[in-house]
Amino acid sequence: MQNFEFYNPTRIVFGEGRIAELNRLVPEQARVLILFGGESARRNGTLAEVEAALGERHVKHFGGIEPNPSYETLMRAVEQVRAEELDFLLAVGGGSVIDGTKFVAAAVNYSGDPWGILETGGRKITQALPFGSVLTLPATGSEMNDGSVVTRKATKTKLPFKNALVFPQFSVLDPTKTYTLPPRQVANGVVDAFVHIAEQYLTYPANAPVQDRFAEGLLTTLIELGPLALSDPKNYDVRANLMWVATLALNGLIGVGVPQDWATHMVGHEITALHGLDHAQTLAIVLPAMLQERRDAKRGKLLQYAERVWGLTNGDEEQRIDAAIVRTRDFFESLGVKTRLSDYNLGSDVVEPLVEQLKTHGMVKLGEHRDVDLATSRRVLEACL
Amino acid sequence: MQNFEFYNPTRIVFGEGRIAELNRLVPEQARVLILFGGESARRNGTLAEVEAALGERHVKHFGGIEPNPSYETLMRAVEQVRAEELDFLLAVGGGSVIDGTKFVAAAVNYSGDPWGILETGGRKITQALPFGSVLTLPATGSEMNDGSVVTRKATKTKLPFKNALVFPQFSVLDPTKTYTLPPRQVANGVVDAFVHIAEQYLTYPANAPVQDRFAEGLLTTLIELGPLALSDPKNYDVRANLMWVATLALNGLIGVGVPQDWATHMVGHEITALHGLDHAQTLAIVLPAMLQERRDAKRGKLLQYAERVWGLTNGDEEQRIDAAIVRTRDFFESLGVKTRLSDYNLGSDVVEPLVEQLKTHGMVKLGEHRDVDLATSRRVLEACL
Repeated sequence: MQNFEFYNPTRIVFGEGRIAELNRLVPEQARVLILFGGESARRNGTLAEVEAALGERHVKHFGGIEPNPSYETLMRAVEQVRAEELDFLLAVGGGSVIDGTKFVAAAVNYSGDPWGILETGGRKITQALPFGSVLTLPATGSEMNDGSVVTRKATKTKLPFKNALVFPQFSVLDPTKTYTLPPRQVANGVVDAFVHIAEQYLTYPANAPVQDRFAEGLLTTLIELGPLALSDPKNYDVRANLMWVATLALNGLIGVGVPQDWATHMVGHEITALHGLDHAQTLAIVLPAMLQERRDAKRGKLLQYAERVWGLTNGDEEQRIDAAIVRTRDFFESLGVKTRLSDYNLGSDVVEPLVEQLKTHGMVKLGEHRDVDLATSRRVLEACL
Repeated sequence: MQNFEFYNPTRIVFGEGRIAELNRLVPEQARVLILFGGESARRNGTLAEVEAALGERHVKHFGGIEPNPSYETLMRAVEQVRAEELDFLLAVGGGSVIDGTKFVAAAVNYSGDPWGILETGGRKITQALPFGSVLTLPATGSEMNDGSVVTRKATKTKLPFKNALVFPQFSVLDPTKTYTLPPRQVANGVVDAFVHIAEQYLTYPANAPVQDRFAEGLLTTLIELGPLALSDPKNYDVRANLMWVATLALNGLIGVGVPQDWATHMVGHEITALHGLDHAQTLAIVLPAMLQERRDAKRGKLLQYAERVWGLTNGDEEQRIDAAIVRTRDFFESLGVKTRLSDYNLGSDVVEPLVEQLKTHGMVKLGEHRDVDLATSRRVLEACL
């Protein structure tokens, strides 16, 4: 096991009806900005429920945070917070709204150009506004971690940042709030959580049996729950477990003491930035190709994955690895998430510009061995066609 | 899944050589009391390493915290903190030292008789001194939770308390510091962690597949590592994984959203209080008898445990449950921890006084269904002979 530091102070308030507890969770004197995405939060009554729980507090709103939240939009929220002297942020939505709120929290009093937050990966953040979240979409894990990804539309740049100052103080997870999600978002959430786990698990053996078993338990549960979440959308236990799996997939726990990959995410980010695909769509495209390309470096863990997650014990090593990758792809496809660039009408002409973007953003040594160079990423993208 | 709240702000600093980072973790102006147990911490050089890391800080010592830390001893530490105006506690040791430090942290400025902390289960704590720990014995999980158990020698009373104000700010887990532990303490630690998991897992099915799989992953890992920790005491990875398993066994994670039992612990506490057995010895004695007595209430989970943890799939339900309980007992015995009261020279005459103590301490409705009454506890104790 590698040395590690684990710290995660986010309070999780989980279960049906817990939004009412915002009254306990948000300071009484807080001047609150509620941040949200589209109008579904209002239409479904979630916003009204949040407002009721906040009672007499001074509350303002900022709507319209888009999927893959943009720097341009978020800077308008930053201006609003400054102009109206608000001091507590409350994200109501999924990972994009929470990621965006993290940026706003860090940017309001940031010294210098706030784009620097992204350019330095969050290292120069010295303070952030306190904030909490009400999660409505199980997927990104942003509700219980200190990471965020923001896109600058003007330059088609999608970059992550991370800082312990942007852990949510609390996140309310009410599974019933996910009942009305469109199937595409549910499927995307399952794929996103699955690939988060894969990025921390499918690397090389590191003598960390607990992290391995936790990751395998989460993957196995996702494989069971994914189809049920689509076929039986108001099944409380299915939605509850899916929500908790997605949180645990990226709250730091399964990644301690082990190597991590994240090459699939970095390549995927470029596809979203240039072509607008959903984040999870890009992951469903890139992961199978990345596993295939890096099957030798990942051999030990791919064999373990084949056996423990997919129950594949027949055939030789190559056959079991092949079968595990096929099962992975088939699982994404079974949820309705397509796994080829061509499924999204993208052809071979997109490869080189994507490689150029990786180069521009310094993504030239990716993966758990830092050996996914531009040539490797190019081969992966060609295998995604 | 049941509704739950999860909050755990303890920072884990894990790995060889991390004690040096106390210089970063302890405030520079802190007036520190180092609390420890016997002289092994000094003999092994751990205390010297801690002192070196603390540099020029004002540092005092309080040694002699015993296994099953006593109120009487701890109140002397409370007096020292008050008299010398110390403001930061640093536990160096195992669960007893950390549990004791939690009590001291809460008692120093407690209004009223500090024994009230135990009598009210920690509910009336309104502030506590900040503290951290340097763990030297993987077992109790106290390094990453807000619980503690203290014994009042004068009345032979062993009671738990719990409060979010007594989470350690940080815990340093250096696996090499466990190399010199006596085998008995290592074995006890494995049993303690095993039973912590069992108390949160062997109840009734609650539609919580992730908590189940995490618990099963921890149990399986303990079964693999326990014998190796004894046979190969300086194997870094074995000790590292054992340490992390024991922490995860009782940091709140696997217990969220599911029923919990703890009857075995409550009965075990009385055995320690009256007869001085090691905590883990009492658990090794009580758990198999408790599972046998409550096999019908626990049927679903016992069958799952038999199959997933012990790989038992042959025979009818009763046979599989029998076999799982036998395997559990055999595992404890294989580590050298005896599982019968008679192994400790205790006979049938001890049963009634133990039942009386349970009655005195209000332990009359134990277990996940609150139906372990005194008659049930008596039958369990008789089955422990």
